[in-house]
Amino acid sequence: MTIKAQELQVKTWLNTEKPLSLEQLKGKVIVVYAFQMLCPGCVEHTLPQAKKVHTTFSSNDITVIGLHTVFEHHEAMQEVSLRAFLHEYRITFPVGIDQPDETSPLPKTMTAYQMQGTPTLLLINHEGDLHAQYFGHTPDLQLGAEIAKLTLKRAEGSH
Amino acid sequence: MTIKAQELQVKTWLNTEKPLSLEQLKGKVIVVYAFQMLCPGCVEHTLPQAKKVHTTFSSNDITVIGLHTVFEHHEAMQEVSLRAFLHEYRITFPVGIDQPDETSPLPKTMTAYQMQGTPTLLLINHEGDLHAQYFGHTPDLQLGAEIAKLTLKRAEGSH
Amino acid sequence: MTIKAQELQVKTWLNTEKPLSLEQLKGKVIVVYAFQMLCPGCVEHTLPQAKKVHTTFSSNDITVIGLHTVFEHHEAMQEVSLRAFLHEYRITFPVGIDQPDETSPLPKTMTAYQMQGTPTLLLINHEGDLHAQYFGHTPDLQLGAEIAKLTLKRAEGSH
Amino acid sequence: MTIKAQELQVKTWLNTEKPLSLEQLKGKVIVVYAFQMLCPGCVEHTLPQAKKVHTTFSSNDITVIGLHTVFEHHEAMQEVSLRAFLHEYRITFPVGIDQPDETSPLPKTMTAYQMQGTPTLLLINHEGDLHAQYFGHTPDLQLGAEIAKLTLKRAEGSH
Repeated sequence: MTIKAQELQVKTWLNTEKPLSLEQLKGKVIVVYAFQMLCPGCVEHTLPQAKKVHTTFSSNDITVIGLHTVFEHHEAMQEVSLRAFLHEYRITFPVGIDQPDETSPLPKTMTAYQMQGTPTLLLINHEGDLHAQYFGHTPDLQLGAEIAKLTLKRAEGSH
Repeated sequence: MTIKAQELQVKTWLNTEKPLSLEQLKGKVIVVYAFQMLCPGCVEHTLPQAKKVHTTFSSNDITVIGLHTVFEHHEAMQEVSLRAFLHEYRITFPVGIDQPDETSPLPKTMTAYQMQGTPTLLLINHEGDLHAQYFGHTPDLQLGAEIAKLTLKRAEGSH
Repeated sequence: MTIKAQELQVKTWLNTEKPLSLEQLKGKVIVVYAFQMLCPGCVEHTLPQAKKVHTTFSSNDITVIGLHTVFEHHEAMQEVSLRAFLHEYRITFPVGIDQPDETSPLPKTMTAYQMQGTPTLLLINHEGDLHAQYFGHTPDLQLGAEIAKLTLKRAEGSH
Repeated sequence: MTIKAQELQVKTWLNTEKPLSLEQLKGKVIVVYAFQMLCPGCVEHTLPQAKKVHTTFSSNDITVIGLHTVFEHHEAMQEVSLRAFLHEYRITFPVGIDQPDETSPLPKTMTAYQMQGTPTLLLINHEGDLHAQYFGHTPDLQLGAEIAKLTLKRAEGSH
């Protein structure tokens, strides 16, 4: 019944010296925020939440990752624009650029997860299973509860 | 190291047919919001959060209680005003009026818990222990996480 | 076509040493905010706007007046409660308590102006005419424009 | 004492079929919002205000113009990105791209007006004079009042 979270397909990683992978992060709870820099809802609600998750929870327990899933206005949201965006909005957690797909306007990870748009939130447990996938905004109260449950199971699992 | 949560001392209960007690609620996680109806921070931030906690989490797991801890402007915040306030602000969870104390401006539960003012949040676990006490506003993300931890321990405890 | 603004019928004035009257304020633009202290919309939007109007415009040009028009929960919103409310919410402009009417739940000024509820805004020009009456929230941009027009006409009228 | 507003130096106009000029718009009040699409304050506060100004006041009286004054991250905010930004944020008033200057990181209109950064607001009266220039956010109440004064003077001037 548990579904293995598919590996992220990333063209370029920003805000990190080394590329990240779900495989390598196994053992931690992973919170992936799929967004577009020109998605108003992402800018107003989702990325501020991602920053709060990043500072509220211990980096020993969880990792916050941004995934730039450009599926429209491709020319408008190139890497150079994303870099300036991350700088101006003070986003310091790692952000991967979802691998473009020559055969589709949707990038590869977005297609693999059948995301319906942005923002999309992925919650991955410490064993690498996809615990939840939400399209649209998730309230802080609910998200805090879900992350806590996953970190508790992680703590139990490590005994 | 765990501290037993002291029983609430309540003069009158509103929004409930029967008086409540921590003793009788044992087995559930209890979230107590101490507030004053004329405290701007309570009205703007805390009570909206209390309503969200009330609707986000299952009533099988947790109980949300308001405690009207009047320590100033006593004549201004009598029961008749509180009743109208709860009606207008659509607060439907049980609210107890903290028992006035003839020897102090502070009501009795407020004194017993050494609360510094309003809002004050009490988190009580399913065994009746005081897990946390916070003065001022607690962010949703953090509160959601703490409540989830308490409900998970409750679920484990019931096995 | 211009309608003379009817005199306010006030039981008690707060935040002012002397009773006010439209007659005596003639020559200034008068902004009257009819509100109830237990009206959530008034507390969240209208009274903060009234405070901004009070500080943005010169008191040489305009006068901001609150009018406590209690038409429901009368026992809950007595003078003692209103006084504490004004203190806690730091409302420093003059507030009149609309004169209760033995024959109606609506107080007298509210009836005279046929107000539909709270908040209601009255804009009175320097000649004592009722320029506008709005039920519900008026956006800042629009209100700023209307007040400016009235103060300009006042400046012209005084030549 | 009045200062003639210098003509806008624009490379490309968006959201308009024909290029605009202050000269040609003379007779109307002109509100110019200088912004950058990756300036968080502009996105959160200024552009929403510009949209409200655009819909609140009559287009017979005033014209709202956006001016994209890119002075940093030039590669990140090219025309293709700006076009997508305007589309996603539903900005429908005319926007001019401030003419780049080979000798400076600041574009030409920005330099001519000695703007200190973004957002900057220019208020130009119906005679083409620069009435005010504000750096940072201007509250709605104040802006509404200033625009109303300029439109009233315009109405008088046309007699």
